[in-house]
Amino acid sequence: MPFSARIEGSIDRALDRATAALPPPKLAAALRHAVKPGGARIRPTILLSVASACGDDRPALSDAAGAALELIHCASLVHDDLPCFDDAATRRGKPSVHRAYGEALAVLTGDSLIVQGFDTLAEAGAIDPARAIRLTAELARYTGMPHGICAGQGWESEDQIDLATYHRAKTGALFTAATRMGAIAAGQEAEPWTELGARIGEAFQVADDLLDVLQPSAETGKPMGQDAAHDRPSAVASYGVDGAIRRLQDILSGAIASIPACPGEAMLADMVNRTAARLTPAHIATPAQ
Amino acid sequence: MPFSARIEGSIDRALDRATAALPPPKLAAALRHAVKPGGARIRPTILLSVASACGDDRPALSDAAGAALELIHCASLVHDDLPCFDDAATRRGKPSVHRAYGEALAVLTGDSLIVQGFDTLAEAGAIDPARAIRLTAELARYTGMPHGICAGQGWESEDQIDLATYHRAKTGALFTAATRMGAIAAGQEAEPWTELGARIGEAFQVADDLLDVLQPSAETGKPMGQDAAHDRPSAVASYGVDGAIRRLQDILSGAIASIPACPGEAMLADMVNRTAARLTPAHIATPAQ
Repeated sequence: MPFSARIEGSIDRALDRATAALPPPKLAAALRHAVKPGGARIRPTILLSVASACGDDRPALSDAAGAALELIHCASLVHDDLPCFDDAATRRGKPSVHRAYGEALAVLTGDSLIVQGFDTLAEAGAIDPARAIRLTAELARYTGMPHGICAGQGWESEDQIDLATYHRAKTGALFTAATRMGAIAAGQEAEPWTELGARIGEAFQVADDLLDVLQPSAETGKPMGQDAAHDRPSAVASYGVDGAIRRLQDILSGAIASIPACPGEAMLADMVNRTAARLTPAHIATPAQ
Repeated sequence: MPFSARIEGSIDRALDRATAALPPPKLAAALRHAVKPGGARIRPTILLSVASACGDDRPALSDAAGAALELIHCASLVHDDLPCFDDAATRRGKPSVHRAYGEALAVLTGDSLIVQGFDTLAEAGAIDPARAIRLTAELARYTGMPHGICAGQGWESEDQIDLATYHRAKTGALFTAATRMGAIAAGQEAEPWTELGARIGEAFQVADDLLDVLQPSAETGKPMGQDAAHDRPSAVASYGVDGAIRRLQDILSGAIASIPACPGEAMLADMVNRTAARLTPAHIATPAQ
């Protein structure tokens, strides 16, 4: 089964569990609005790619881990869009959750999706509790405090901010979680996979900064120029457009070089290049060498 | 060691992990503000009481479960106080998190505490992954959708609302989680303990509704008359003050009757009465017979 079908199937099962048996109807609808249809599902795709390269001997656990990671990512988008953060009117080309359902339900949608991420791991965990608990610890580590995406968003409220620390937490964390959790789901050590995830995360951040200045809203589904409007640190602000493009290509080359020796090495290099092609504005995309 | 020392010790260790190694300083401070000093820590006290009655053969796991439950409870208070919900200025006699740190950090505080709850279970889980994964599933079930405290809060955005369903999710869920997780942490089946938790939760809800009309803000640390001000369903609105007091006593008697036969039965009955004494406005408190 292609990764995309595994990912959507696993996400759909998680959403079905969260909205079964007479839930509050508006909150149930808001959960679906936040998760379906999705974006590129990049994080679970990376997770399944690494799991496959590591043998993927517990595919149900890998699927659950991928869905859990994507639910956490969707939760972060819903909360980041709130008026107290970006006050974004649109997301993925449709109204943001708080514009469609109000702020109260948007807060609860993010909360419920975080919980559903952990629930999804626990539900699949009966197959292999030892691996499932390691996956739970990883997901928590890269989501919460002190170094997960919550911490990354928290840095935006500080006067003094180290750009690398901020990006590593805000954007990098879930990519690092993706490669590490892929390895753990397949029964392997996480550590050799940390650098690959971190580098893909860095590449994603630079690409996102470039998209924010180069790509019209109609193509990204979100408003342009948000970084400058919110005076946020960005690779474009630091290095200029040409410098940011060179930096992106360097990072992707480093990502490929960091892939541990394994039977799936070539497949993973291809995955990195495909991810890069999805990430970058069409007219500047070139695969890493 | 008394339960209170075990609970604070376990919560402190969880907070220390969440705020170690150069976190964003304001968010780290906001997490402590939300959790310390605590309220009565009723939920983890119930959890440890049931674990003890069941033999408590893995005290580190029971401690982690108690801390996890309390962190989730604190998260829910932070989010419920937000302007889009109750817009509460104070909590436990000091400024609410969003008044002290702003809305953005209050949203992130709740998110981080939810995650830290699951992290705390995962961190202790290496001792006994099978029990830890069951505890994770319970915590998720009673926190998220479709029937946890997120769902309970979600019902407040609906036009049609069933009072029993609403209370069971909004207030009862974490009490049911407390008794069930206490049993699981000690290696026992959860099911026989469901009714005790549900009834303590019902009693708590009725007591809370009574406090809202009977007790001055100086004693509860939160503003009076919030239920009427927000037109929220309440036991006092449904039955009047005298009717609500009779209902509270009936529920407590039922709670004690529901305690499964076990060596700790008398200790648990005592715990229910002590919990009731803590809950109820001083001039109406009478132990259940």
